[in-house]
Amino acid sequence: MKILVVGASGRVGFQLAQKLSAQGHQVIGTYGQHQPDLPQTAQLDLHAAVSEMRPVMTGVDAVYFVAGSRGRDLLQTDLNGAIKVMQAAEQSGVTRFIQLSSAYALQPERWHDGYLKTLTDYNIAKRYADEWLMHRTTLTYTIVQPGVLTETPATGKVSFDETTLGENSIADVVSVLAGVLTTAHAQEKVIMMKQGDQPIASALAAL
Amino acid sequence: MKILVVGASGRVGFQLAQKLSAQGHQVIGTYGQHQPDLPQTAQLDLHAAVSEMRPVMTGVDAVYFVAGSRGRDLLQTDLNGAIKVMQAAEQSGVTRFIQLSSAYALQPERWHDGYLKTLTDYNIAKRYADEWLMHRTTLTYTIVQPGVLTETPATGKVSFDETTLGENSIADVVSVLAGVLTTAHAQEKVIMMKQGDQPIASALAAL
Repeated sequence: MKILVVGASGRVGFQLAQKLSAQGHQVIGTYGQHQPDLPQTAQLDLHAAVSEMRPVMTGVDAVYFVAGSRGRDLLQTDLNGAIKVMQAAEQSGVTRFIQLSSAYALQPERWHDGYLKTLTDYNIAKRYADEWLMHRTTLTYTIVQPGVLTETPATGKVSFDETTLGENSIADVVSVLAGVLTTAHAQEKVIMMKQGDQPIASALAAL
Repeated sequence: MKILVVGASGRVGFQLAQKLSAQGHQVIGTYGQHQPDLPQTAQLDLHAAVSEMRPVMTGVDAVYFVAGSRGRDLLQTDLNGAIKVMQAAEQSGVTRFIQLSSAYALQPERWHDGYLKTLTDYNIAKRYADEWLMHRTTLTYTIVQPGVLTETPATGKVSFDETTLGENSIADVVSVLAGVLTTAHAQEKVIMMKQGDQPIASALAAL
């Protein structure tokens, strides 16, 4: 498949682009300012208009949105940037869209849990990006919502149990993101994840 | 009618509450920190949960959302605060909702026009609040989108022409907001306004 990874200079996006490439996909990694060391990249300014985003979508089978501003530009990047990428994808005939979100982004009643209570602005941005993808587009979506991301080795195991927050190795998040692409019953689903006891492949198969 | 004005300590909300009271309505003006000098007020924290917002909606016929953070708290007040008020209204059986927005909030292709180019974050917050009201609620809405607000005397005249930006006396915006409440064909409409040549009553009648 031809896959666009939006946010390929980020911690998740870079590993994701590498993994999808290794699986044989043609991957274009987009970046804002810092070009990542990947086989195929394209600059994509998330402040640009939808019409300016369309050219990079030509012939693309699936878009991953894994960009983020780390709290510095939530309205323009994490919220409106994401939605403009969705609109550009739809206008370009892309049908599959996989979005990296955050634990409980769609459940504001949980935003006081643990570390989330310091991230209300972030949660609001992610919430309305997720809501738009689910309810205002015709894209076949999957939304992945991990808890805290850690730069630790892959465990290869996860839990999709939504009852509590948990940590996630970035490498495991990348494996889940890559895995949902080829998991038909991951379509139209929101997947909350954390480290757990279930091998990723079987957790995906049990969705 | 029993009317809730959310943001009654603000420049628009205070005048609006006074005008609606003078018209014979029972008006409850909500405020965050600074209680306005109005006959009936209620504290309403826009950071609170939807469930905590419901009590103030009891028996209310129409809600005005005219609160704003002046850029200081866009995600939590102007965006998520507005949407939580909508949800509390719906859950409380309120059917009529009138929202103060901003010129071209729903037309991002115009966000580089004039003074708007410094207000992208604000426009994004207003855009998604407006979008939610129109597409994700069952509320009977009217959205009023003025250009720059000025603390100048009422002119009593407006233009609803959408081709260019313009200024608006706050008093004129208040007259339009009050007027749409009793204008049946203002329902389910977005009204962009600026100072103009048409008396407000006839402009509303011509909607």
